[in-house]
Amino acid sequence: MDTLIRERVEQSFNQQQFMHFIGAAITDAGHGYCEITVPYSIDLTQQNGYFHAGIIGTLADNAAGYAAYSMMSERSSVLTVEYKLNLLRPGDGECLIAQASVIKKGKTLTVCRSDVYVLKNGIEYQCAAAIVTVIELLRESEK
Amino acid sequence: MDTLIRERVEQSFNQQQFMHFIGAAITDAGHGYCEITVPYSIDLTQQNGYFHAGIIGTLADNAAGYAAYSMMSERSSVLTVEYKLNLLRPGDGECLIAQASVIKKGKTLTVCRSDVYVLKNGIEYQCAAAIVTVIELLRESEK
Amino acid sequence: MDTLIRERVEQSFNQQQFMHFIGAAITDAGHGYCEITVPYSIDLTQQNGYFHAGIIGTLADNAAGYAAYSMMSERSSVLTVEYKLNLLRPGDGECLIAQASVIKKGKTLTVCRSDVYVLKNGIEYQCAAAIVTVIELLRESEK
Amino acid sequence: MDTLIRERVEQSFNQQQFMHFIGAAITDAGHGYCEITVPYSIDLTQQNGYFHAGIIGTLADNAAGYAAYSMMSERSSVLTVEYKLNLLRPGDGECLIAQASVIKKGKTLTVCRSDVYVLKNGIEYQCAAAIVTVIELLRESEK
Repeated sequence: MDTLIRERVEQSFNQQQFMHFIGAAITDAGHGYCEITVPYSIDLTQQNGYFHAGIIGTLADNAAGYAAYSMMSERSSVLTVEYKLNLLRPGDGECLIAQASVIKKGKTLTVCRSDVYVLKNGIEYQCAAAIVTVIELLRESEK
Repeated sequence: MDTLIRERVEQSFNQQQFMHFIGAAITDAGHGYCEITVPYSIDLTQQNGYFHAGIIGTLADNAAGYAAYSMMSERSSVLTVEYKLNLLRPGDGECLIAQASVIKKGKTLTVCRSDVYVLKNGIEYQCAAAIVTVIELLRESEK
Repeated sequence: MDTLIRERVEQSFNQQQFMHFIGAAITDAGHGYCEITVPYSIDLTQQNGYFHAGIIGTLADNAAGYAAYSMMSERSSVLTVEYKLNLLRPGDGECLIAQASVIKKGKTLTVCRSDVYVLKNGIEYQCAAAIVTVIELLRESEK
Repeated sequence: MDTLIRERVEQSFNQQQFMHFIGAAITDAGHGYCEITVPYSIDLTQQNGYFHAGIIGTLADNAAGYAAYSMMSERSSVLTVEYKLNLLRPGDGECLIAQASVIKKGKTLTVCRSDVYVLKNGIEYQCAAAIVTVIELLRESEK
């Protein structure tokens, strides 16, 4: 089943031009879970040469959206309602990894936790923690 | 005075490679206030061709950081502690504009409100609302 | 019309035992707007004798819920999905006042801004700022 | 050591009149961890007779504050900077339990995760999830 989930998630992910632009990829996905990874590039940095907070927030939100999407009907689409992100450490490393999982799947709304890690010299440091609320939109015909 | 503020803000902004990468620019800045604008590009889109939420969050956070920075000592630097963003409408338009202003300037922490608008056919629609907390970091010699 | 709105809001408010318990009252309500006030009492304090943050959060959330409710169908009920609260100053004063207004009324979700003030010697100081997301629940028969 | 931590936490907690007023108690505390429990009372309810969201938020925030406080110098005091709370289920049960733990202890700021459960017929259901940011205030003499 997880292969099918991953296919669906990647199919949607691949339609997001911004993910290609920043070099992000789905590195894991399953029922209620998603991981997105982006390698370091100078294009993604803030004034100190670390990953920009905008990239950290983007990954946290997007991983959560796909974690929620993985539990929904094939015909649904998903939108982020809101998220809250705490930045815990600078994004100083070779690679950024966002791991999101569903806390509560509701009929309309799904709430996810999303943690972002930066990989430096083989060690993962948590650089952000987020809570994300997403809404499931049914196709007209299913309403 | 606002000319000096704007210079300082732009100087820091220009060191953020990610801002160049997405084509963002400071379009206004003053005491406790900052506006950042980014024109539409296919590179910045999600699956429906609208601005990706990651760009909306990036602008909301960054505008708030510079609104706070505009009220700080020249020798300070600023880091986002956390932010919370509500997405109100799809980012469907030619241009994204984030306007941030300081709600409360504290000794260590500054809290900002940040609203993001999308410009479509000459009309601005609010597409996001955020609250952002930033921390002022003094240079070692000033502590 | 605002008289009817206020009646509906007060009718629901009066069913919240916790509001009676803390001595809170609706002090204003209209289309997309609500104000709740609670006078100081030693029962509502934290370790320094100021209003407890729990009371500040309670008012911010509840005022937002009723601001949203004021724009909904008579047969709807309203639930808070989530809120985010920044505490800006200690709740040091004679009276706490939460003022909430709707930022975006959606079909399912409504987003409100809620600001909390503490009144001390006749001056209002903002002690908190919140964003609140609420969901409208239709009665079964209306779905 | 945990006995000493618990003593310190309870000493501060007991100075919060609002905690007595709602019948809350510390039910566990250790290094970077705190649990607060409040039994059901009609005084704490919303319009459907469930625990009011204000109580849920109060516990989530307060448990986080003490989880952070447990890792600080004896001479420090702690203030909540901000929190974000998602309400996942109605607070329908005999008892509300908030469990908070520190995600990141910084020099000035500490970030906690706080989960709130409602106990009904012997089963715990998670009814809220929060992230809380607190600031450590040193006594003047230590600065």
